[in-house]
Amino acid sequence: MSDTRPIGVFDSGLGGLTVVRELFRLMAGERIVYLGDTARCPYGGRSEETIRTFGMQDALLLMEMDIKLLVVACNTVSSVALDYIEKSVKEIPVVGVVLPGARAAALRTAERKVGVIGTAATIRAGAYVRAIQAQDPAIKVYGKACPLFVPLVEEGLLDHEITRLTAQYYLAELLDSGVDCIILGCTHYPLLMETIQELVGTRTHLVDSALWTAKEVKDILAALGGLSPEKAGGLAASRFMVTDYAPRFKELAASFLGGTLPSIELVGLEKLTKLCETAAAV
Amino acid sequence: MSDTRPIGVFDSGLGGLTVVRELFRLMAGERIVYLGDTARCPYGGRSEETIRTFGMQDALLLMEMDIKLLVVACNTVSSVALDYIEKSVKEIPVVGVVLPGARAAALRTAERKVGVIGTAATIRAGAYVRAIQAQDPAIKVYGKACPLFVPLVEEGLLDHEITRLTAQYYLAELLDSGVDCIILGCTHYPLLMETIQELVGTRTHLVDSALWTAKEVKDILAALGGLSPEKAGGLAASRFMVTDYAPRFKELAASFLGGTLPSIELVGLEKLTKLCETAAAV
Repeated sequence: MSDTRPIGVFDSGLGGLTVVRELFRLMAGERIVYLGDTARCPYGGRSEETIRTFGMQDALLLMEMDIKLLVVACNTVSSVALDYIEKSVKEIPVVGVVLPGARAAALRTAERKVGVIGTAATIRAGAYVRAIQAQDPAIKVYGKACPLFVPLVEEGLLDHEITRLTAQYYLAELLDSGVDCIILGCTHYPLLMETIQELVGTRTHLVDSALWTAKEVKDILAALGGLSPEKAGGLAASRFMVTDYAPRFKELAASFLGGTLPSIELVGLEKLTKLCETAAAV
Repeated sequence: MSDTRPIGVFDSGLGGLTVVRELFRLMAGERIVYLGDTARCPYGGRSEETIRTFGMQDALLLMEMDIKLLVVACNTVSSVALDYIEKSVKEIPVVGVVLPGARAAALRTAERKVGVIGTAATIRAGAYVRAIQAQDPAIKVYGKACPLFVPLVEEGLLDHEITRLTAQYYLAELLDSGVDCIILGCTHYPLLMETIQELVGTRTHLVDSALWTAKEVKDILAALGGLSPEKAGGLAASRFMVTDYAPRFKELAASFLGGTLPSIELVGLEKLTKLCETAAAV
């Protein structure tokens, strides 16, 4: 058995390309349809209702493209609205980034103390706490919202004194609490991995959700016999859509993806809003 | 003559409340209808086309509310799309925040060297350069985009080492160029006034566009005989609308306004998008 349909992946912006990168590393033959909502990013500071509405619109747009699996490559949407999206998308598997990262962290922590960093909405939703404690209720979870990390990454200050000072400011409490494992709970954060690792020391393990999410996608497709046999997959055979051609987006995309994007399509927001007006209406 | 209709004011988010604050200081009897597009802010990193579309939607929503004057209290929209909005809104005066600030700076600079700080879109658009040089073509204008200032203000780090370091990073070049006047070309920046003033020294004059915009509004209404005679104006008689009840928005609004907002209404994005689908369609 095999399934040559593409995998759908969406994020509030371009950070989800860190997940795409890992998907291609594990499954070079797959095709991907990606949507980045660059006209309305970032989602992390918005209300749960708005995050649900935007996330559902993103999901429904990809559902029109005959995908075989949907990856919610946005920690904010995965934390706030995954169950809500799963209720509407019943035909295919839906994979968020929270559960794979939570499982990896639960396996890694010797001290049974895990830190989670993410957007304000991700931390407030508590989805990581629930997912980690579902693996092992004895694990203590310490969450910390780090709203400045996304703009720092987008400003390109990956290795800069401002970023180091900001990381100290956000992570001091987590380190005091004795965590030995920190989940990078936002698709932008892998770009700050080196700076954060330097600050927290090599004894603290950093979990990159992107990597574990890609592994989960591969496992699910393999179990369903849905991996693609084609050699015609990969970047050039994939489709990338954004809701705004924001300045510098090609540069940013390249830094998340570790390679140059092929042609990119613009999707009008009016198309998205027609798919689902508000979260309540679904 | 008098006109008891409200003044319409919009911003991409809550920063425009710094303009509302100044409007009330000068004209305590006026009523205001405010719209903050908190579901899609910030605008400053988006493309010109998207900024035009969002700005036009904001303007058209307020035009449905029988206002007597429209204030575009967003530097990004004022820089990128003011002429575009003026072409559609012909019935009443439209006041942006760029021209009042530019005029004030042109009067203040002895060295004829003015700095402008703002969002990426504001600086790229060059509207401040054109407006200042229309006052005096001999003035040199030095622009610098400061994308981290908005998230720093929203994070509440008004007086913090991270903010001082970021201000140094952004303003070093401007100071080297010998400007004696810097326009705070974003409605969030007045909250950083003290930190910036400390860095640049008291000899460098900081121009707060909000203040000068309010003066211009008063002058225009006075000239048209359109000031309100009522004592029933002010905060309690005004209307405040947002597109998302973002967490902490009341706290943030209070810091911009210097007072507590009365009741706030939620406006669905679908209402805005129906008013104007894309900039090209107008």
